[in-house]
Amino acid sequence: MAVYTSVSAEALARFLARFPVGDLVFAKGIAEGVSNSNYLVETTEARFILTLYEARTEAADLPFFLSLTEFLAEAGLPVPRPVRDRSGRMLHAVAGRPAALVQFLPGVSVSEPTPAQAAAAGAALARLHLAGSGFPGARPNPMGLGWWQDHGAALAPALDRLAPGLAAEVATALERLSAHWPADLPAGIVHTDLFPDNVLMLGDRVTGLIDFYFACTDLYAYDLMVLHAAWCFAPDGGTVAPALEAALLAGYAGVRPLTRTERAALPLLGTGAALRFLLSRTQDWFDSPAGAFVSPKDPLPFARRLAAYAHRRAAA
Amino acid sequence: MAVYTSVSAEALARFLARFPVGDLVFAKGIAEGVSNSNYLVETTEARFILTLYEARTEAADLPFFLSLTEFLAEAGLPVPRPVRDRSGRMLHAVAGRPAALVQFLPGVSVSEPTPAQAAAAGAALARLHLAGSGFPGARPNPMGLGWWQDHGAALAPALDRLAPGLAAEVATALERLSAHWPADLPAGIVHTDLFPDNVLMLGDRVTGLIDFYFACTDLYAYDLMVLHAAWCFAPDGGTVAPALEAALLAGYAGVRPLTRTERAALPLLGTGAALRFLLSRTQDWFDSPAGAFVSPKDPLPFARRLAAYAHRRAAA
Repeated sequence: MAVYTSVSAEALARFLARFPVGDLVFAKGIAEGVSNSNYLVETTEARFILTLYEARTEAADLPFFLSLTEFLAEAGLPVPRPVRDRSGRMLHAVAGRPAALVQFLPGVSVSEPTPAQAAAAGAALARLHLAGSGFPGARPNPMGLGWWQDHGAALAPALDRLAPGLAAEVATALERLSAHWPADLPAGIVHTDLFPDNVLMLGDRVTGLIDFYFACTDLYAYDLMVLHAAWCFAPDGGTVAPALEAALLAGYAGVRPLTRTERAALPLLGTGAALRFLLSRTQDWFDSPAGAFVSPKDPLPFARRLAAYAHRRAAA
Repeated sequence: MAVYTSVSAEALARFLARFPVGDLVFAKGIAEGVSNSNYLVETTEARFILTLYEARTEAADLPFFLSLTEFLAEAGLPVPRPVRDRSGRMLHAVAGRPAALVQFLPGVSVSEPTPAQAAAAGAALARLHLAGSGFPGARPNPMGLGWWQDHGAALAPALDRLAPGLAAEVATALERLSAHWPADLPAGIVHTDLFPDNVLMLGDRVTGLIDFYFACTDLYAYDLMVLHAAWCFAPDGGTVAPALEAALLAGYAGVRPLTRTERAALPLLGTGAALRFLLSRTQDWFDSPAGAFVSPKDPLPFARRLAAYAHRRAAA
């Protein structure tokens, strides 16, 4: 949580002059997201987030992310619509960084979701899947099965440093995933990172879905299990909270019913979701330079989820 | 610039329920100030800053700072008024930290002040001095001459590591300041940290004076020279920008005319102001732990100001 690149008030006023948005009223660097610099900007007409993309976001993918959120906003989803400047451009440069000005959305991220909030998150994800089906762009998931296979092997020593025996558990999970990954389930635009941090809510209502920088084309039911892994576990990280799970799945299926094949695949897809975050967090855990602004997130709760999903699959 | 202590949306909603301020609409950790954690909070009724005081702010002084800003706000100054809860309290505890909810003020901090902006800052400081004269509280300046004397000696090796010969320049300045510090100039409530960062502006208008955590009782003309040191130097740090200086002094004196004795003392008081920031920045420069959230500020521009004020005094 940090502002990596600072933008002077003077530079900001010059930047805003390119847009039909009125005059600057205030701007504050905000502690949001882990990779990019974000400013909350208010003008005499509206409120915006200015994002400066730091090195970790692939600049070549920005047009995909911006077109996608514009498309979803047009479809009525509560996503941060990019603001086009007077010449129609969405992607800019500010302080030497690629940058975009997007609509500000109200709401707060919950830390301890209630079942009603989990249901609303499930329904919002289903709406995103349905709305995204008309989007013409595509982006293969750079952090899908192939990435897990590469990184599961490469990170084996790191995994065993985290917890002795974890590398073997990951290898077993990878074998199952490689043998049984369902290629023929319904697929399309997915978010793949819809943690509570990335859902803004007022009470039980979803007011914003944000941070589309992992959005790609993949299985809808995999995205649902990322949501499940992010929302439905007790604080110990390895026990599903039944009320949250029931609410989240019902919320989703109430908008986009799951096929029988999708339902049967959920434990395997959950294994994939747990593995994805276990591996990326393990990588960040050992890669973060001393003194980094951002504290790396603990990978171990996702090791516990991995075990929980494997257990469910064995029991199914 | 960081948020050191995180507050969950749930904890924040519970905290806000103590105040007659409506329901939470959004909250964002903001990168403001260097010592405390700040959240921009909007409710259905108004906008606020929630500050959590970290270790560096002396908890015993918080009632002074909060009473002072409430007093100044009552007097019509654009300062962040603390919000009292339903039982009348201004000082609270949030996430284990002392905390206060204060009024949000619009505006941005300029990086390259214009003469009109410097004049407005000067006038705002003079208004603060006049308004503060009715405040019943007092707080000796903990970073005045006695602190400079103690730390000037203790930091001598560090000063010479920054720039060979700097410790001797500081010793010479300290001798002059100790011998000639004017004890009998008009004194009262002063800010002592009114850098452009702590002044919010819209165009040429001051919309906020913030960060009163160095406020104390000291010479008005010393506070004016802190403002001068902070606003009137060219980017090299050692050359006064004549247009900014003329505007700032005229802005101040238009509201609170300076006595002849105050005017004569300005170069000496400027030496003190430059020394104060040279010493505190030198301390932070060598004390900041590796990996601190906040990058320490370069002390050397204040070494250059010290030389500039000493030269002026010699020339006067």
